[in-house]
Amino acid sequence: MLILMEPAATIRQTGEVLALSERVNLRPYLSQAQGRRVIALTSEDEALAEQVRALPGVEEVRPLHDGAKLSTRQFQSRDSVVVVGGNAGSKRVSVTRGSMVVMAGPCAVEDRETLLECARFVCDAGAQVLRGGAFKPRTSPYAFQGLGVRGLELLAEARAATQLPFVTEVLSIDDLPLVAEFADALQIGARNMQNFPLLRAAGETGRPILLKRGMMATLDELLLAAEYVLATGNPSVILCERGIRTFEHSTRNTLDVAAVPVLRRRSHLPVIVDPSHAAGDRELVGPLALAGVAAGADGLLIEVHPDPDRARTDAEQTLSLPQFAALMPRIRSVHKALHSGEGAMEALAGA
Amino acid sequence: MLILMEPAATIRQTGEVLALSERVNLRPYLSQAQGRRVIALTSEDEALAEQVRALPGVEEVRPLHDGAKLSTRQFQSRDSVVVVGGNAGSKRVSVTRGSMVVMAGPCAVEDRETLLECARFVCDAGAQVLRGGAFKPRTSPYAFQGLGVRGLELLAEARAATQLPFVTEVLSIDDLPLVAEFADALQIGARNMQNFPLLRAAGETGRPILLKRGMMATLDELLLAAEYVLATGNPSVILCERGIRTFEHSTRNTLDVAAVPVLRRRSHLPVIVDPSHAAGDRELVGPLALAGVAAGADGLLIEVHPDPDRARTDAEQTLSLPQFAALMPRIRSVHKALHSGEGAMEALAGA
Amino acid sequence: MLILMEPAATIRQTGEVLALSERVNLRPYLSQAQGRRVIALTSEDEALAEQVRALPGVEEVRPLHDGAKLSTRQFQSRDSVVVVGGNAGSKRVSVTRGSMVVMAGPCAVEDRETLLECARFVCDAGAQVLRGGAFKPRTSPYAFQGLGVRGLELLAEARAATQLPFVTEVLSIDDLPLVAEFADALQIGARNMQNFPLLRAAGETGRPILLKRGMMATLDELLLAAEYVLATGNPSVILCERGIRTFEHSTRNTLDVAAVPVLRRRSHLPVIVDPSHAAGDRELVGPLALAGVAAGADGLLIEVHPDPDRARTDAEQTLSLPQFAALMPRIRSVHKALHSGEGAMEALAGA
Amino acid sequence: MLILMEPAATIRQTGEVLALSERVNLRPYLSQAQGRRVIALTSEDEALAEQVRALPGVEEVRPLHDGAKLSTRQFQSRDSVVVVGGNAGSKRVSVTRGSMVVMAGPCAVEDRETLLECARFVCDAGAQVLRGGAFKPRTSPYAFQGLGVRGLELLAEARAATQLPFVTEVLSIDDLPLVAEFADALQIGARNMQNFPLLRAAGETGRPILLKRGMMATLDELLLAAEYVLATGNPSVILCERGIRTFEHSTRNTLDVAAVPVLRRRSHLPVIVDPSHAAGDRELVGPLALAGVAAGADGLLIEVHPDPDRARTDAEQTLSLPQFAALMPRIRSVHKALHSGEGAMEALAGA
Repeated sequence: MLILMEPAATIRQTGEVLALSERVNLRPYLSQAQGRRVIALTSEDEALAEQVRALPGVEEVRPLHDGAKLSTRQFQSRDSVVVVGGNAGSKRVSVTRGSMVVMAGPCAVEDRETLLECARFVCDAGAQVLRGGAFKPRTSPYAFQGLGVRGLELLAEARAATQLPFVTEVLSIDDLPLVAEFADALQIGARNMQNFPLLRAAGETGRPILLKRGMMATLDELLLAAEYVLATGNPSVILCERGIRTFEHSTRNTLDVAAVPVLRRRSHLPVIVDPSHAAGDRELVGPLALAGVAAGADGLLIEVHPDPDRARTDAEQTLSLPQFAALMPRIRSVHKALHSGEGAMEALAGA
Repeated sequence: MLILMEPAATIRQTGEVLALSERVNLRPYLSQAQGRRVIALTSEDEALAEQVRALPGVEEVRPLHDGAKLSTRQFQSRDSVVVVGGNAGSKRVSVTRGSMVVMAGPCAVEDRETLLECARFVCDAGAQVLRGGAFKPRTSPYAFQGLGVRGLELLAEARAATQLPFVTEVLSIDDLPLVAEFADALQIGARNMQNFPLLRAAGETGRPILLKRGMMATLDELLLAAEYVLATGNPSVILCERGIRTFEHSTRNTLDVAAVPVLRRRSHLPVIVDPSHAAGDRELVGPLALAGVAAGADGLLIEVHPDPDRARTDAEQTLSLPQFAALMPRIRSVHKALHSGEGAMEALAGA
Repeated sequence: MLILMEPAATIRQTGEVLALSERVNLRPYLSQAQGRRVIALTSEDEALAEQVRALPGVEEVRPLHDGAKLSTRQFQSRDSVVVVGGNAGSKRVSVTRGSMVVMAGPCAVEDRETLLECARFVCDAGAQVLRGGAFKPRTSPYAFQGLGVRGLELLAEARAATQLPFVTEVLSIDDLPLVAEFADALQIGARNMQNFPLLRAAGETGRPILLKRGMMATLDELLLAAEYVLATGNPSVILCERGIRTFEHSTRNTLDVAAVPVLRRRSHLPVIVDPSHAAGDRELVGPLALAGVAAGADGLLIEVHPDPDRARTDAEQTLSLPQFAALMPRIRSVHKALHSGEGAMEALAGA
Repeated sequence: MLILMEPAATIRQTGEVLALSERVNLRPYLSQAQGRRVIALTSEDEALAEQVRALPGVEEVRPLHDGAKLSTRQFQSRDSVVVVGGNAGSKRVSVTRGSMVVMAGPCAVEDRETLLECARFVCDAGAQVLRGGAFKPRTSPYAFQGLGVRGLELLAEARAATQLPFVTEVLSIDDLPLVAEFADALQIGARNMQNFPLLRAAGETGRPILLKRGMMATLDELLLAAEYVLATGNPSVILCERGIRTFEHSTRNTLDVAAVPVLRRRSHLPVIVDPSHAAGDRELVGPLALAGVAAGADGLLIEVHPDPDRARTDAEQTLSLPQFAALMPRIRSVHKALHSGEGAMEALAGA
């Protein structure tokens, strides 16, 4: 069941509900939504629901069947705003409906000079968030696994130099305290989308979570993965479409561009697109980025490197600096074409 | 082997090559490209190639391994222009790189009034080609199979009323003479993409062919299907991405928007997008159409109906007239955003 | 609606129903099932149903919504028996629940000697039906397209030499009269599974139809394709699982071995497995054939060639004669293991 | 590079190689194979290879490109034998080529009585390993997540009662010490197949690892995931095919039965099949289990419950006790049919 407290409910009143749930041996999922505290309990026992309704400060008890709850429009109709940044001097960036936040940088952090050059360039070109991997998930155990802590330090230095907040992937619970200390936002990669203990632990850090869709995950499963984070009380989740695995092998993955309007319709969470992993091919990154924008994405995640052919990971799909610079104004103009005029996108579905 | 005749080669000289191929028991595929006649033979015998090279009027003999030939950029680097229309008073429309030809109309032709209302509306809203099915491929034998000849007559009437050329699907060789007599362009549907006798026979009518990608087909296979048409000497093929089948069932199919830049890179043929069949859901047609435009499509194929909920086929994915009217300016503005400025799209890959 | 005539209904009584359906402009689908005539009409009009019920000889009128009807267990609970052969001196072979009919031969008919050698060998090894392609569907227009009529003549000669009935693929309606004259059974290939005019025309020949699942067709769609044949009144359809297209490319296709028990549960039609096209690799044909047998298939369709590496089509997946000879006793012993003992397979689900 | 020590190399000599790798800043992967120590280094530097070759006790240095190494037949041609059990009084069971080890039990451990009843029954019916989940990965955060430690205690009690070793899933590194203390073998579930830190940590416990294929994973990726375990020096990995995600939704997943012979050909590791998760439907578990046996699997993993309809997880696909009892002799007879006779399976590919 989903317990909605009154907006004016006190901490003590909320505490009563939590205490009751403990007495009946249920783990309460405390979160915040629509300006009030919300508690999810994994029971639909009607007698218990009655007990809960009788407590002071409880406004409503709704059934919570299977499926996503906290991420849905049924639960919260207005669009969420996820703020990234504001740490260690970085700028605050809002990812939400109508924004076009470009997150750019190298796939993996490799060395100081390369990272700084890249960060300064993408910043000047209009990117608002820096991306870069310090811990890399690699299909082969013998492949380059990232610089680890040293990578985080370099990202922090690039942040200081550009004021761009940075997002970086976290692979294991053990690394979480460290990564959460450094990073402005934590990326959960496609391979970990259903690593449920990691989702929970990442949610509990309170950092914004950039959650990438698994390459063979349905949109239902993506929303349920987001639910693991939201159920910890952390409302800051950005969903990311990055291509799914299909029979077609002309591209690394198949960008499911329809995921953008489908997720937007079902969820209040912001949705961004990663054209780089979908394409797996530098020449296709531009068209896929623009397709994502035109489909209504709130941001993009793009791999950029000063010398892409020498990048240690994902070289084929990484844009050069001039390619990125050429793409940015195109992104802006398509985004503007979409959102200008009366009614804009909303008109289409509603007409 | 691929035999390129000299631009000034005579019919008699070409005839000599055909005669030789018959003597060695090979079927010659005669086509026209780059301002000259081209003959494909399914043999790579070097002795034969020598014989051919010795004939007058032969400029070059190239090896023809597996795979598409006539549809590739290697064979013809400049973009093809497919002209639809010019029959029975219809306007001539060019589908090619940089065009944005919207083809719109009902899924199936149902009755005179509905079709005429729809045709006039989409014409006024800026569509340049009318679409409508007279013969319908239906998964169940018990479903509505189209009006047949009567449907073709109504389409011709709508053409006369609007000057819009029309495209309609052909399902079998038996129907071809009739459909080719009426229609400005012939659609080969997704289920028939590998119906090779039909492809050949449709090609031989000389009509422009709108070739839809099979829901199970790779882009390689789509280009080889186009090759069946091109090998008849008919150069007018429009490729159409309409979504592929994947595990994701939130949408009817998964629009493989990357197909647009991939096909554009490999082939000189124009590429259009059908957002209606990909979406399977009216509300998603707009975002997918715009994504297709932003990815570089040369046109769109959209289902529209004056009363979509009462359409006998594909009701869920059919736009109402006001929805279509609201979408058109958005299509124009995204297309303009993409193609304006110096260098435009070409800059992206080349930078 | 589905109109079931009484078992003792006369031809004249059936004619009355057909006449009525014509008066209301509906195409009647006449078939035979459960010892009675059945007429499907694509209308659920209740007034019409009343009229039909009032006619003499009509036993029952059932609603016929979407979806397969004649192929289902709801419609006919006992297993169908499809008899192949009995023409031109060939033996009659029954494909049905509990049978293990091995159909073997070359992918394509290439020449007289090879075909005869192959036919005699597979006959001696225990195959009961000869397979071989005279008309080949090829992804590329430049690939070998089969011997055509000459291929049919050679198959007929091999039949005369071995008494094996033969099955061969038909690609177009134009070829149907010829192929149906020669062949004991007609194969509809995977690429034509939704070539609806071909399905109808093939059904109307009255020959048994071996219907292969499209490589991206759901089992629902396969049953609906069968329905096109059954609706012509031809009850002899053999369903064939031959692998579906997935992301896994270690094999040519992914054998969906579960299709066997799923189809068996939903339909009374016999189900066979083609391990050759699923595997795309000679070494895997044996294990996949046995898996098909163990899953409950009623037969197998296997490509065999005296010199597989020189086969003009599908060389990689074609067994040599000794490989086929080694596989046959294994097929028999697994089949026996499955069907011996009390209760056998039926026990499993029912227990 | 892959460094093979001489069989008689001393620990000190191996230590020299490790020390050298540390001096050049490379992580050495120490494992045991073919009766000797093997060290993998992620560098192909030829100068370094020369240095290594010069060290005493080094027999050979081979290049190690991308891709799996330790799991391949190229590396070890004979079949691996993975021994499960021998702890706390459990029997030792060998999983290897030609074995048919049935692992059975409830999806999740729910309570003491149910588990003990189930364990005793499957033991009597011939199962050799008990399976049961104490920590459950659930798509929704609100679903039953398992009994945790209490579940492990109950599994240990069931083991004591039956002498069956047990395998149970581990979800996070934090739980590893506890689970490894109790369990005879650790299962890495499909969703964690690419949770690389977990693979490494699980490998380091030295326990046998039952590695399930991700529903989105290619066989290449499965072997590379096994490589993460093998590279820790733990040679005991059992590969498990459990169905992949495709467009076909008649079954929960599509059992890729060809994975068995493909993996067998490429790897020396034992391969088992989980028909329960592939089927998602009780009635299909039997046919899929038998298909797996016939394709050459070395074992099966089957969900069984005394009252399947009341199982808290995976109820639909769980066999009842009588269903399991009916299936076991069928498994034995198909397995016997496959492996009896001279040459048996080997004959097929080799002929």
